[in-house]
Amino acid sequence: MGMQHSPLTMSRILDRGATVAPAEEIVTATATGTRRQTLAETRDRAHQLAHALRGAGIRPGDRVATFMWNGSRHLEAYHAAAGMGAVLHTLNIRLSAADIEYIIGHAEDRLIIADADALGLLEPLAGRIASVERMVVAVEEGFEDWTTSIAPAVDYEDFIAGQPTRYDWPDIDENSPLGLCYTSGTTGNPKGVEYEHRSQYLHTMAQCMTDSMGLSATDTVCGIVPMFHAMGWGIPWSALMLGCKQVMPHRFMDPRRLVELMASEGVTLSAGVPTIWQGVKATVQADPDAHDLSALSRVTCGGSAPPASLIRWFHDTLDVEMIQGWGLTETSPLATLSRRLMKRKHLAMSLDEQLTNVGKAGQLMPGLEVDIFDTDFNRLPHDGESVGEILIRGPWICSEYYRNPQPERFHGDWLITGDVGTIDPEEYLVIADRSKDLVKSGGEWISSVDLENHIVAMDGVAQACVVAQPHPKWDERPVALVILDPDAEISPQSILEHCTTRFAKWQLPDDIMFVEAIPLTSTGKMDKKVVRADLEAKNYVLPDLRP
Amino acid sequence: MGMQHSPLTMSRILDRGATVAPAEEIVTATATGTRRQTLAETRDRAHQLAHALRGAGIRPGDRVATFMWNGSRHLEAYHAAAGMGAVLHTLNIRLSAADIEYIIGHAEDRLIIADADALGLLEPLAGRIASVERMVVAVEEGFEDWTTSIAPAVDYEDFIAGQPTRYDWPDIDENSPLGLCYTSGTTGNPKGVEYEHRSQYLHTMAQCMTDSMGLSATDTVCGIVPMFHAMGWGIPWSALMLGCKQVMPHRFMDPRRLVELMASEGVTLSAGVPTIWQGVKATVQADPDAHDLSALSRVTCGGSAPPASLIRWFHDTLDVEMIQGWGLTETSPLATLSRRLMKRKHLAMSLDEQLTNVGKAGQLMPGLEVDIFDTDFNRLPHDGESVGEILIRGPWICSEYYRNPQPERFHGDWLITGDVGTIDPEEYLVIADRSKDLVKSGGEWISSVDLENHIVAMDGVAQACVVAQPHPKWDERPVALVILDPDAEISPQSILEHCTTRFAKWQLPDDIMFVEAIPLTSTGKMDKKVVRADLEAKNYVLPDLRP
Repeated sequence: MGMQHSPLTMSRILDRGATVAPAEEIVTATATGTRRQTLAETRDRAHQLAHALRGAGIRPGDRVATFMWNGSRHLEAYHAAAGMGAVLHTLNIRLSAADIEYIIGHAEDRLIIADADALGLLEPLAGRIASVERMVVAVEEGFEDWTTSIAPAVDYEDFIAGQPTRYDWPDIDENSPLGLCYTSGTTGNPKGVEYEHRSQYLHTMAQCMTDSMGLSATDTVCGIVPMFHAMGWGIPWSALMLGCKQVMPHRFMDPRRLVELMASEGVTLSAGVPTIWQGVKATVQADPDAHDLSALSRVTCGGSAPPASLIRWFHDTLDVEMIQGWGLTETSPLATLSRRLMKRKHLAMSLDEQLTNVGKAGQLMPGLEVDIFDTDFNRLPHDGESVGEILIRGPWICSEYYRNPQPERFHGDWLITGDVGTIDPEEYLVIADRSKDLVKSGGEWISSVDLENHIVAMDGVAQACVVAQPHPKWDERPVALVILDPDAEISPQSILEHCTTRFAKWQLPDDIMFVEAIPLTSTGKMDKKVVRADLEAKNYVLPDLRP
Repeated sequence: MGMQHSPLTMSRILDRGATVAPAEEIVTATATGTRRQTLAETRDRAHQLAHALRGAGIRPGDRVATFMWNGSRHLEAYHAAAGMGAVLHTLNIRLSAADIEYIIGHAEDRLIIADADALGLLEPLAGRIASVERMVVAVEEGFEDWTTSIAPAVDYEDFIAGQPTRYDWPDIDENSPLGLCYTSGTTGNPKGVEYEHRSQYLHTMAQCMTDSMGLSATDTVCGIVPMFHAMGWGIPWSALMLGCKQVMPHRFMDPRRLVELMASEGVTLSAGVPTIWQGVKATVQADPDAHDLSALSRVTCGGSAPPASLIRWFHDTLDVEMIQGWGLTETSPLATLSRRLMKRKHLAMSLDEQLTNVGKAGQLMPGLEVDIFDTDFNRLPHDGESVGEILIRGPWICSEYYRNPQPERFHGDWLITGDVGTIDPEEYLVIADRSKDLVKSGGEWISSVDLENHIVAMDGVAQACVVAQPHPKWDERPVALVILDPDAEISPQSILEHCTTRFAKWQLPDDIMFVEAIPLTSTGKMDKKVVRADLEAKNYVLPDLRP
């Protein structure tokens, strides 16, 4: 042994930001403005929280749940749990009560730290989640009169008050559990992904690479993606390690409020799903001179692929680079990333070509391995045309589900992602679709995502959702639900004509339906399961099958 | 277990650059120009070399030595050895024959890959290094008629010719040895530092962080620091992983040739010791319009601290950011880094303040821990004034020396670096001196580095070297050797007057001696051991002790 084998535990990097940049701020949006504290205060409070949790009987490995928006106390919970070796179980506030009940019971959470404004959503579970011994309630302006009947409850501030501001972080194994996040499955119960210290430590280092998000201590970071989604895409950890200023929107997800917050706090890097960026675009378009977003330089976009028109708009109008990331809860989540300039040869490309690359899921993060396979698990060529199941492996990829291994979701040490796609000769991964959302027509596959992106690129189209409908001859045929911009005058026929510029006739939707809204999942993606269920409930029939 | 525990072996990241950027170039300087090959060719040749080494009986863990300048074949040796699990022992070409003999014998190198032009330096060892079974000779233009009597020898190209271009990298433990590098000790025999896969993997990730060197796949990297010094500061690994263009100067270290190479190849990032950058500065000053260095954006400077005037010159004249790094062979080597903008509060600083920070050794890399201690190993305050021994620990810090543990160089799991310094309230490490180079006068310490930096900041001073001389009353007193610029007219008295602007009277050198040259170590640092020995050989006596 020639080198130290220091364990890769989060406690080795957690406190660094507060050490090198103690006066940097954590800003949380409130009903009337913002609440501010320094990184040093955040660290001290996190250490106090760890003492309080310890006092409440929490031991390394125990699950501590959060039911919280993005805010300073949620960050303190991340910090405290990781330092002391507890497992932070980030409950998704937007799930159904039934799912939340299942998840809490399955994880056997011993304590829940909840935002007071969200307590009402938990109340139906009173008497149904026996593992929960204690509630700690984080109170923001306007919610001072909270109540809960889930378990004996204490105000967060009373809970940590008077505790020492230094907790001697214990030495734990680097493969100890760190966090728990359940995926909203398409069938069956939600499945838990258990993050570990080493996996998230390595993910944090990768996220801070220049060619990743270019995250720097000089950044002001605003994670809009909820901290209950795949550890907030890892941004809380990276920002704590580097010592970034962090701006947290809490429950105020209205696009106008988000834009105001980013402008007034000088946010340089933000992260969210495409619907967030569509909202930001609409807000800016409605009143172009109202907000100064000149500090903003990068927005990372994940969850689903951003339309090319949106990438272009951010570049042309705001001089902001949209960075696309692809990943899953199971991949911690960063798996591939796409930036305008990913390698030297891109320097010589036209802007159009560069932005086209951003529309792809991107290149593999160093240390991971991704490939596409046919149904017999033979590797397919990287020719940009062969479509296969995407499998991935590496040190921050899930190896089994929590207390429910599901070996069918793995092939050897590869995770079967459930997405299908191509890899082009430049080694860019391009997601064709979720395998469950592909339209299988006459033995061929039609990508619903490709159709949606093409339709949404039309002037006057705000959103498009393509789903499969059953057909006795072709097996399935695609139909499109389309939301138009206000006052747009577009006919179904003109959309089909637009589609013929890129798609073969057999790939065109059989039906174009104009709608007011498209249902979204709790992660802000279009919920095609609900769309299909709605159509079925309405006894929808494809046009050529109607009597 | 919820996450994959993929081992952190270099084979998981080595081939990535050639996969994502196969056409990118590796450029090696030759006698008459450059030699070029693609990254894909480099990977293929590295895999061939691994097969050839395997055929020559090399097994995982065996030491394969290189005796080479920076060039494509040295890079292939890095790549092949790391992939197959052999231990790359990078011999320092500039050491004495006696040291090289000791090192080869101590490491029991089985095979040496040597540059043909350097074979003459090994020839005195014929018959004295019994472990070496085979020589592989890398031939550059002009050295086709090489001979060696060390061991049976083969031309590198013949060695790898016809071997398969894919080697199935074996699964090895992540704590397996990767490389071996001996430090040129000040007393006793050289000591070996054995790098491991995991340590160098983590070092590579850290080096590619935005706040590290900002290394990107879009960079054209020129590592001037020899690849036989602490793995070329890790740059070969990072550039292989990212897929950078690499420009390698081979034996052509003349500043004019280096500048020509950097200009013609569009180098964006380079790395070397201060003497290299002094040479580049002199070359540009001699003929400011001769070379276009506009692509160059960052130079990293390590080995010893760059004078403030040099940092300023690079900024003002070339618009190049000098990044200071501090580390040792024992620290892989990156330990701290100093950049102009290291945190948000720097954005509001004046340029002068920013560049002053670059003159400090810098901030700790994430994941490491550094602190200053008194002689009883009590931690000292981070007040910028308390001077203490610098200790460091973390996942890429040496834990013992190879086959010679030297426990006195460690304190618990801390490495005693042998440097002394302060940590300021901003958590910047400032190196006061090597502990052996401090001048101990009347119970107080005088920093030779501080005096040197102050003297060299005078117009007309090219270089300064301060060493201690014995004194019966004060124990030691400082004297300064100074090299003046051509035609500079400076008196010893004016240098002393200049020093009084910053130093107390008792800290001033007792003697100022103008010299033509200052001896350098094999790493390009001033060799104070030799300076002191020279003074002793000349029976030097301090002025106030002369009869």
